[in-house]
Amino acid sequence: MIRDSFRDYCQDKLMPRILMANRNEVFHRDIVSEMGELGVLGPTIKGYGCAGTSYVAYGLIAREVERVDSGYRSVMSVQSSLVMHPIYAYGTEEQKEKWLPRLARGEILGCFGLTEPNHGSDLSGMETRAKFNPSSRTFTLTGSKTWITNSPVADIAVVWAKCDDGKVSGFILERGMKGFTTPKIEGKFSLRASATGMIIMDEVEVPEENLLPKVSGMGGPFGCMNNARYGIAWGSLGAAEFCFHAARQYTLDRIQFGVPLARNQLMQKKMADMLTEITIGLQACLQLGRLIDAKKAAPEMISMLKRNSCGKSLDIARQARDMLGGNGISDEYHIIRHVMNLETVNTYEGTHDIHALILGRAITGLQSFTVNT
Amino acid sequence: MIRDSFRDYCQDKLMPRILMANRNEVFHRDIVSEMGELGVLGPTIKGYGCAGTSYVAYGLIAREVERVDSGYRSVMSVQSSLVMHPIYAYGTEEQKEKWLPRLARGEILGCFGLTEPNHGSDLSGMETRAKFNPSSRTFTLTGSKTWITNSPVADIAVVWAKCDDGKVSGFILERGMKGFTTPKIEGKFSLRASATGMIIMDEVEVPEENLLPKVSGMGGPFGCMNNARYGIAWGSLGAAEFCFHAARQYTLDRIQFGVPLARNQLMQKKMADMLTEITIGLQACLQLGRLIDAKKAAPEMISMLKRNSCGKSLDIARQARDMLGGNGISDEYHIIRHVMNLETVNTYEGTHDIHALILGRAITGLQSFTVNT
Amino acid sequence: MIRDSFRDYCQDKLMPRILMANRNEVFHRDIVSEMGELGVLGPTIKGYGCAGTSYVAYGLIAREVERVDSGYRSVMSVQSSLVMHPIYAYGTEEQKEKWLPRLARGEILGCFGLTEPNHGSDLSGMETRAKFNPSSRTFTLTGSKTWITNSPVADIAVVWAKCDDGKVSGFILERGMKGFTTPKIEGKFSLRASATGMIIMDEVEVPEENLLPKVSGMGGPFGCMNNARYGIAWGSLGAAEFCFHAARQYTLDRIQFGVPLARNQLMQKKMADMLTEITIGLQACLQLGRLIDAKKAAPEMISMLKRNSCGKSLDIARQARDMLGGNGISDEYHIIRHVMNLETVNTYEGTHDIHALILGRAITGLQSFTVNT
Amino acid sequence: MIRDSFRDYCQDKLMPRILMANRNEVFHRDIVSEMGELGVLGPTIKGYGCAGTSYVAYGLIAREVERVDSGYRSVMSVQSSLVMHPIYAYGTEEQKEKWLPRLARGEILGCFGLTEPNHGSDLSGMETRAKFNPSSRTFTLTGSKTWITNSPVADIAVVWAKCDDGKVSGFILERGMKGFTTPKIEGKFSLRASATGMIIMDEVEVPEENLLPKVSGMGGPFGCMNNARYGIAWGSLGAAEFCFHAARQYTLDRIQFGVPLARNQLMQKKMADMLTEITIGLQACLQLGRLIDAKKAAPEMISMLKRNSCGKSLDIARQARDMLGGNGISDEYHIIRHVMNLETVNTYEGTHDIHALILGRAITGLQSFTVNT
Repeated sequence: MIRDSFRDYCQDKLMPRILMANRNEVFHRDIVSEMGELGVLGPTIKGYGCAGTSYVAYGLIAREVERVDSGYRSVMSVQSSLVMHPIYAYGTEEQKEKWLPRLARGEILGCFGLTEPNHGSDLSGMETRAKFNPSSRTFTLTGSKTWITNSPVADIAVVWAKCDDGKVSGFILERGMKGFTTPKIEGKFSLRASATGMIIMDEVEVPEENLLPKVSGMGGPFGCMNNARYGIAWGSLGAAEFCFHAARQYTLDRIQFGVPLARNQLMQKKMADMLTEITIGLQACLQLGRLIDAKKAAPEMISMLKRNSCGKSLDIARQARDMLGGNGISDEYHIIRHVMNLETVNTYEGTHDIHALILGRAITGLQSFTVNT
Repeated sequence: MIRDSFRDYCQDKLMPRILMANRNEVFHRDIVSEMGELGVLGPTIKGYGCAGTSYVAYGLIAREVERVDSGYRSVMSVQSSLVMHPIYAYGTEEQKEKWLPRLARGEILGCFGLTEPNHGSDLSGMETRAKFNPSSRTFTLTGSKTWITNSPVADIAVVWAKCDDGKVSGFILERGMKGFTTPKIEGKFSLRASATGMIIMDEVEVPEENLLPKVSGMGGPFGCMNNARYGIAWGSLGAAEFCFHAARQYTLDRIQFGVPLARNQLMQKKMADMLTEITIGLQACLQLGRLIDAKKAAPEMISMLKRNSCGKSLDIARQARDMLGGNGISDEYHIIRHVMNLETVNTYEGTHDIHALILGRAITGLQSFTVNT
Repeated sequence: MIRDSFRDYCQDKLMPRILMANRNEVFHRDIVSEMGELGVLGPTIKGYGCAGTSYVAYGLIAREVERVDSGYRSVMSVQSSLVMHPIYAYGTEEQKEKWLPRLARGEILGCFGLTEPNHGSDLSGMETRAKFNPSSRTFTLTGSKTWITNSPVADIAVVWAKCDDGKVSGFILERGMKGFTTPKIEGKFSLRASATGMIIMDEVEVPEENLLPKVSGMGGPFGCMNNARYGIAWGSLGAAEFCFHAARQYTLDRIQFGVPLARNQLMQKKMADMLTEITIGLQACLQLGRLIDAKKAAPEMISMLKRNSCGKSLDIARQARDMLGGNGISDEYHIIRHVMNLETVNTYEGTHDIHALILGRAITGLQSFTVNT
Repeated sequence: MIRDSFRDYCQDKLMPRILMANRNEVFHRDIVSEMGELGVLGPTIKGYGCAGTSYVAYGLIAREVERVDSGYRSVMSVQSSLVMHPIYAYGTEEQKEKWLPRLARGEILGCFGLTEPNHGSDLSGMETRAKFNPSSRTFTLTGSKTWITNSPVADIAVVWAKCDDGKVSGFILERGMKGFTTPKIEGKFSLRASATGMIIMDEVEVPEENLLPKVSGMGGPFGCMNNARYGIAWGSLGAAEFCFHAARQYTLDRIQFGVPLARNQLMQKKMADMLTEITIGLQACLQLGRLIDAKKAAPEMISMLKRNSCGKSLDIARQARDMLGGNGISDEYHIIRHVMNLETVNTYEGTHDIHALILGRAITGLQSFTVNT
């Protein structure tokens, strides 16, 4: 039911905006408020103005919005999994009450600062520092984060920094704090309908009450990322579904050599492959959602399906683009946009290769990320 | 529970026999009787001495036996899905009572005669003829069938032939009938532990009571094949699981350049890919089994998973063989045997390409098997 | 020698312009004049102000320019292979003298009108008509062409139309002719640095002397396309080479987990695959160029290498983009641009699948394009 | 010319023997003598009764014999590249005169002992030891070698062992030496027409004059392997060519759904892919052969083409087998034999992955074989 009404919203309200938004790199801030009204921001959270749905429902929501655009889904994922989730899971009661209802309504928008310019997959090299000042009971944050979805337009940022004890902690930074800037990244050919930028922190003074106190160490950001990756596993298949259906319809409508393109064996084989991967991929996501709802899911299961869904969806989108021939490079057919978007989706929150090594470590008990044994 | 006890049987009784059986092309007839005792022949049939299990249970059984060898699973599939199933579904009460209990016990072994030398995927070209003789109330069957699992050692054969009205009917042929011979096919480098042969019918006279009366047309053999394909979808993944586990253990045990082979990224990526496909493939089979049990499955779902499981399992077995290096060509490591077996499994009961076109037709409404529109 | 000086031009003059040209969809008309000065337009033509190089040299030129951008190479290919070549091969002496020197200097720019909105791979369905008017000794051309590189900025167009006898002929249309318009195609996410549009002909009156008289039937456009495809076979590998080198340097420079990314097995395997395909692909192009120079090449050889180079280059560009992680979606690293460009390059002048069927027909003697036998 | 007459021999004399030789694991010793008569053993060696051909010619010979069977080519490669080459390159004049003419005539057969049971790709871990006895001026060799082509039937063995100084040297062992045994490996499902075994050395006393004095260190065996790998690069494509032609003919002959199988798009695409890879692969081998003849080839070039040819040939053979459907598993169609053979060919003399890392090291300057930086 949630899915059906949200699907209508996505098709009726988002789909008409996406063409020009993507072409001209425009982020429509209204979308966040609209999503807030529909109750799909932080939907799995109980209380604080949130819907309290199951994880299966969260997955279905992600799939519907990414059927339109991965950029829109990213906006939603960041707000839900990377901003609201850590505040809910690691924050104080005061922080929850202060931020969650406004975030849930889409009144304010958040972003998540983890990746740094020199450290992509290797989070252990984090350079951002948070130095505690006992006198003022504040932290001074210095460093920079990059490839941050929403950052140029966000009101708050959940930022991860290394504290004096060498452990990583999370902080809520607010726009307007001195030394906090969020320059936009230009020349992006992926997720153009969402804003992406950096977070520059030049001795930003953050009050102690903005520290997320209930977590310390990499478990904090990892918990957020598992949450987000689960949504991506569903969402990317939504993009793949759009591409499959669009290519199917195109090849049915287009007559070449006297018959619809869809009548060709080479086309049918592509469609058979696409539908098979979508079907078994979605089935696996559904089962994963049920396991998360039953608190029986392991992080490696999420890695497996984030990787599988993203890699397969990218392949499917590429096949679909190819099926459209010359028309496939025009944004009016939407598929080239999904192809470009899914490049990012396959990369962020753990690349395809990094998740292979995460799985490999789980399978063998041996890590192969680094040269150290 | 069924699975666990049957798994023990497979590992304790079948596994020790398979090496030499495959190397020397020996079919152990005892296996059929042992399976009969364990209640795994025609397991989904209610009554007539059969176990009456769910289709999910049938799938789990197929997976366990094919974990050992696809040839053994083929013997079981033929007996269950291609001999017992048509007698149960299309036969008279007398036929059921006469044949099913003996087949269920493994006292007699059956085979299934459909494919002809000149007609593989194109069943419509069937040349075998059944001519009715009103005086003797018998049918005279003439024609030949090839690539018939079990035929050289079978006691009975369910054979499909075109009748005077041009429609296909099924007949139960019994060893000893005049003109009925089953020459073995030599030089087979796949499924060597099961016997494969032809069925030659030179004016075999078959009494009317051996006709399966409740089906006419291609729906008969198609029903049987859907049943068998479902078992193959599960079974082939069992073979893949064996290969995955064997390759994992091999690479953990073998030290090269000072570390286990399994510590290499290239090995871990292969294993991550393998385990992902096994996991999502099995998950999909489980869901399909539940749908069959609920009588909600469409034949195209079975095509999709027969194709997916077989194609992916073949890939997995090949990867596993590669991971074993030179040792991978020795039958003592078992994987090369699975590689060779899965070539057949990916081909029989509808090749990978034919199922692509079956799916393509379902997706587009347009057939592309033939040049006729 | 030609290659080295032209390479310097490409790197020094084109490379600095391409980033913003692609980002903002700007076509720099100057480039055509600069290429004219360097003698690389219609380079294989003898006389008429052309350089008269070998086909091997032409290939090397295409490779250098596409190392920068496939859009720039497309501009050059169209001018050389699709405008100058047909005038040279099928035109009168007057036509050659009138047009070739100005085209060779880049003083005027041409385009090639073949593909129609409803007919991509199936050229036989051409709807554009040329009706002869005996009184005025003119042809009236009506119809539309789409996905025409250069059309919005071209001074002349070589357009193919069906004449009264049902055969296809080529005509030189000039900007300014009444009824001749060339609307730009918007929303293109590929080859953005070159202009693409339609050619609309609403009863355009074309004097008889603008007919290319020495060819009739599909042999005319096919001859042009073979010429262009040869250049594409070389050019696309130039793009792949850029991507390979850029990814290699990026992974050498970027340190993760304490070592350069390039030190990882997964990265090295990708690079080994990329370099292998580039090497054997270029080697094959070189041999093809020699065969063309010796007039021993068959069109199917060109199909084979157009298909191989484009398909492999697209794969290589995608792998390279993946190797750059998040940075890979930024146009400043150039690879995402090549990924988008090569989608078109793999599609135009015969898609990957169409060339497979061309090769299949040559191999088997049986056409499988259409349902007619 | 060499190629044509040798091709006739292969097709007329080898092809008729291979079916039963492979089925029953029989090695025909006569073949070596026949090859000797034809001058194709050690063909590139000048003098000593050898033909002194170019490396291009050697490649063409390898291609012709492997068109029949990779096992036969292996026998020839071992004799030529791994036995005669090291004697010629690293031996004394006495050794050359003693052994080369007899080896060239095929009067005696050799084998090459390098790989050990616990050390496949990692040659540095070699355990076989050669201890010098100053008094008797002999070496005592102890250790074991495995997966040795020809060993059970060889008259001599070129064996590599670590000497007292820790460096690897080569020795000529002769059948009959005390402590030297060569047990056959059973249960091999690849290269069944050639004999494969171990070499067990239990304190074998080898006279000093059987030491190959002109090489010390891994350069010795590496030089041999480069020589052999070059032949494999050509040879494996010969096997692929056989599979391509056989599959083409089969699909032309077999009628399904009223037309030849070859008329299907799915079949034509497979054939287009196969022929493309064969064509560009052979072209690259030809160029490599010319470079070797001009003494301009680097070992990495050989790695690249050994890897490319073997990997692609294995894929081609698998595709061909699939195209034959059920008949594809029967040895009478020969393709399943090539599939099984090429598993070994893709593995020995450096696996596909090992050559990727060799190339990766050449590309990046960073080794990723081991965890040590």
